[in-house]
Amino acid sequence: MVQYSPPLDAAFAALSDPTRRGILERLGRGEATISDLAAAFGMTLTGIKKHVRILEQAGLVTTKKVGRVRYCRLGPRRLEDETTWIAAYRQMLEAQLDRLGDFLEQEKGSLP
Amino acid sequence: MVQYSPPLDAAFAALSDPTRRGILERLGRGEATISDLAAAFGMTLTGIKKHVRILEQAGLVTTKKVGRVRYCRLGPRRLEDETTWIAAYRQMLEAQLDRLGDFLEQEKGSLP
Repeated sequence: MVQYSPPLDAAFAALSDPTRRGILERLGRGEATISDLAAAFGMTLTGIKKHVRILEQAGLVTTKKVGRVRYCRLGPRRLEDETTWIAAYRQMLEAQLDRLGDFLEQEKGSLP
Repeated sequence: MVQYSPPLDAAFAALSDPTRRGILERLGRGEATISDLAAAFGMTLTGIKKHVRILEQAGLVTTKKVGRVRYCRLGPRRLEDETTWIAAYRQMLEAQLDRLGDFLEQEKGSLP
């Protein structure tokens, strides 16, 4: 019954941390190096690298090393499956509310 | 720079596990007890309770105890902020691809 989806697991886990979401928002404004990110977030290089590695493994960040400098940008994953999953949840919740509404209507109708 | 958002953290972390997503999909088809879920997922009551607690803390599942039986249903969170966040990421990725496209066009234009 459980649908195993490692990409979905990794993407949601990557997004569950505020610093990682912050890194993605920063990269949304343009490419940045690990040092840029460390400065922007007041973190050590090691700390930022750990977050970037998690984002990279989830496919949310691509990095490229040029000499001694590592550049980071968004992608390649487009979070399509994640969007679909969340939309499905919202639809299920709506349907549940509708069922509850129908039930209450019915109960009201059966009052004397 | 980092936007702390405990609800967003908790919801994404809750969604990062396939059993928890499976529980939500099951509840999308109607209310279920802890025992129903344990049977459906071939897990112990303790194991299911742990997952349900995480979902409940993230606002994705509501539980109600009637006598000795605990009933679970979806909600109350509608994952609106999560939808907005993911949509923003996708938009940033599109913009990045556009900028890259413009750059490549420019480079092509400057060829002899």
